[in-house]
Amino acid sequence: MVLTESSINPSILKAHYGIRGEIYIKAEKIRKKLEEGVEDIPFRDIICANIGNPQKFDHKPITFFRQVLSLVEYPDLLEKHNIENTKKLFPKDAINRAKILLNNIEKVGAYSASQGVENRDGHPSSPDDIFLTAGASSAAMLILQMLISHNNIGIMVPIPQYPLYSAVISLFNGKPVLYYLEEDNNWSMDIISIENAFEEAEKNKIQVKAIVVINPGNPTGACLTRDIIESIVKFSEKRDLLIIADEVYQENIYDDDLKFISFKKVLRDLQLQYPGRYNVQLVSLHSVSKGTIGECGIRGGYLELTGFDDFVKFQLYKLVSISLCPPVPGQIMVDLMVNPPKKNDESYKIYKKEMNYIKEVLKERAKRLKKAFDEMEGVECRKVQGSMYLFPRIDIPKKAILEARSLNKSPDEFYCIKLLETTGVCVVPGSSFGQVQGTYHFRTTFLSDGNIDERLMYFHKQFIDQYR
Amino acid sequence: MVLTESSINPSILKAHYGIRGEIYIKAEKIRKKLEEGVEDIPFRDIICANIGNPQKFDHKPITFFRQVLSLVEYPDLLEKHNIENTKKLFPKDAINRAKILLNNIEKVGAYSASQGVENRDGHPSSPDDIFLTAGASSAAMLILQMLISHNNIGIMVPIPQYPLYSAVISLFNGKPVLYYLEEDNNWSMDIISIENAFEEAEKNKIQVKAIVVINPGNPTGACLTRDIIESIVKFSEKRDLLIIADEVYQENIYDDDLKFISFKKVLRDLQLQYPGRYNVQLVSLHSVSKGTIGECGIRGGYLELTGFDDFVKFQLYKLVSISLCPPVPGQIMVDLMVNPPKKNDESYKIYKKEMNYIKEVLKERAKRLKKAFDEMEGVECRKVQGSMYLFPRIDIPKKAILEARSLNKSPDEFYCIKLLETTGVCVVPGSSFGQVQGTYHFRTTFLSDGNIDERLMYFHKQFIDQYR
Repeated sequence: MVLTESSINPSILKAHYGIRGEIYIKAEKIRKKLEEGVEDIPFRDIICANIGNPQKFDHKPITFFRQVLSLVEYPDLLEKHNIENTKKLFPKDAINRAKILLNNIEKVGAYSASQGVENRDGHPSSPDDIFLTAGASSAAMLILQMLISHNNIGIMVPIPQYPLYSAVISLFNGKPVLYYLEEDNNWSMDIISIENAFEEAEKNKIQVKAIVVINPGNPTGACLTRDIIESIVKFSEKRDLLIIADEVYQENIYDDDLKFISFKKVLRDLQLQYPGRYNVQLVSLHSVSKGTIGECGIRGGYLELTGFDDFVKFQLYKLVSISLCPPVPGQIMVDLMVNPPKKNDESYKIYKKEMNYIKEVLKERAKRLKKAFDEMEGVECRKVQGSMYLFPRIDIPKKAILEARSLNKSPDEFYCIKLLETTGVCVVPGSSFGQVQGTYHFRTTFLSDGNIDERLMYFHKQFIDQYR
Repeated sequence: MVLTESSINPSILKAHYGIRGEIYIKAEKIRKKLEEGVEDIPFRDIICANIGNPQKFDHKPITFFRQVLSLVEYPDLLEKHNIENTKKLFPKDAINRAKILLNNIEKVGAYSASQGVENRDGHPSSPDDIFLTAGASSAAMLILQMLISHNNIGIMVPIPQYPLYSAVISLFNGKPVLYYLEEDNNWSMDIISIENAFEEAEKNKIQVKAIVVINPGNPTGACLTRDIIESIVKFSEKRDLLIIADEVYQENIYDDDLKFISFKKVLRDLQLQYPGRYNVQLVSLHSVSKGTIGECGIRGGYLELTGFDDFVKFQLYKLVSISLCPPVPGQIMVDLMVNPPKKNDESYKIYKKEMNYIKEVLKERAKRLKKAFDEMEGVECRKVQGSMYLFPRIDIPKKAILEARSLNKSPDEFYCIKLLETTGVCVVPGSSFGQVQGTYHFRTTFLSDGNIDERLMYFHKQFIDQYR
């Protein structure tokens, strides 16, 4: 046997990705049992609160987007012999958009994305700097692969972080350089602790090349202020770091006092204000999987490069050509996301209604869940800001910690397994994202329409009573 | 600047992928000029004979497949208020299939694929051994990443080969161990030269772990006999090698005397015949991008594992979860490919007609192109067998070789650039695939409906006359 536990690439063994890890696999097994009618299970369904995939729940896809996609997939619908019937099923603007897309399929994504970015930031954006990818994960992989040129390259990642980053850094034999987010400050960033993490890494002879910032945060939801973003840009200039700005949750903000500001905008503003300064390289990631569109299954996304020369762009082009050609449906979805129906279009009203509805639903569910956490003994959950997640801290009783250790589980993992087994709610332990030692968290989506808050409260009380 | 020519991961610089390389970029630039109406170009269109993407030409997608995809993308078409009109546009079996897919979207691909494999091979296949991927390229990357555990791991690849393999081996810092295909024997495999290549690598202290076999071949089209496949399995057992069988062209065979036989079938046959023997690990790749279906843009494919334990399968599952979640449209297309309309289904007739038409067209175009090569002075092209390519050998005159060298180009590259500039035909030089030193080839698809054969003949005569 060639591929065995002992011969497999050890970087793969090292890579952890708890989002679909053992607890999720366990949940899937229970789901099967439920479907088979096994009866000694104390709940009737699994709530997959581990994955930020809105369409796994009751979030319907945006009608206009799917109408266009449907027409593009089967262009015969636009032919003479069909068009009369097609018009009974599809609005005119969807038909027109499908025609435009079919005539320009090769060009469409990057052009539209650059226009979207220009509108968002008020700064120019060129299609030549935009690379369509199979979702933001692919984009992150491409950039990390380019950066990690030997096994002593450091990439700064937040703690807690979306574990894609640590996993991919492991896969490419880089070194994650951890900086801690401030839980007491609603999970914001603290430039001093970032500086310290950098200096510590340099002391250890690690060559730090980039900093990953997730805004709004995953798993924290934190939405960064302009001041913080400016300070990160300044820090990156000083330390010659490339910034990877994961901005896939830019549409997911639930607090009217907060506003998403892109790294691109802040960087360009600074460059205009101080000519010749701030020549920082920036890679901005976006995706059709999140926002109100939530099209995880289509695999569409893009990265935008700021401050890159043609040589490096060609190498990225080559890498994309070798490996990760983005699916055409994903490219179409990028076009639709950044270029949705406009005010006087036939579909505008429905589109707007659907978008607002999803936003409102997410907001309401987030608040409801947050309220549940606020009522739970020994649970502390920060302000609802953005993304699709809450990341509460749980005081786990000593007795439970001891039992967890005897089972060779981390205490938060132990808590999450018990939660799953008792209520069918599948969440991800904080240790999968990283957390300050001795603190315990979990990440849950607030996408579910079910009685997730009741189940969580019921379980938590029982757990605390048992182990108190 | 962090990412520059001198700091970028050197494995990426090393990786070559000529299919979309400089000649293709040049072709795209000329295409733009043609669109802009630039006049001093001696042809009116570009023929992209560099990429095996049938739908870039006049190959229409299979109607039934696209009907189902269209319905799945916009499930509202199946609702009560629409269904009467939908029935005017879609056949009943497409509607039924879409309903089934929508109810089982999470399970569908791997189950159908395993059934398809069972029907093909007459041996059991389990959905647990099948991993859906974003096309066969992703699948190949996953396996190579698992295999290459340090920078002295060797992977045997054919020469000429589809450059994905050498490129990905470079990216992961492995060592390609080249074995030469026998041009004089219609590009078949020669077990003795494979043995020699293996021994040579061992002598150089390379730890050879796997052998890549492309059947039918790319760029050669060669279709392997059972005897050859058996000898590869036996060789792999003796040398403890894992086999990566790239079988994406299994439906593309144009010679009635030839038949595709899968590695899985031969391996299982041998295992049945000799109980306890031939415990060789096999990874078989398939894709929706080739065959008569030709859905390159959807990104669907799968790999099947034979002889793997659960530990390794879990690591692969983890790797897929981190990086390359296959797009849902691709998963649906896999289902449709392995489970097409059946004899009494409403769509069967059209489906069959379309499939046969594409097969016949490809066969005819291959033969026409082969005939053109046969008529060209100093060009030798092997028998048409399979895949979507021909790989003729060209005797390039000394004068041309000298001129190429003076321009720092390989002679075949020089030939292909001249071909593009003279006729608009874009092909890939043999050096991108590897070739015996001193021989020159190029790869061209035979997908084009244009007058590619006339352009090639016209150019070649002119080229030879000029440099004779």
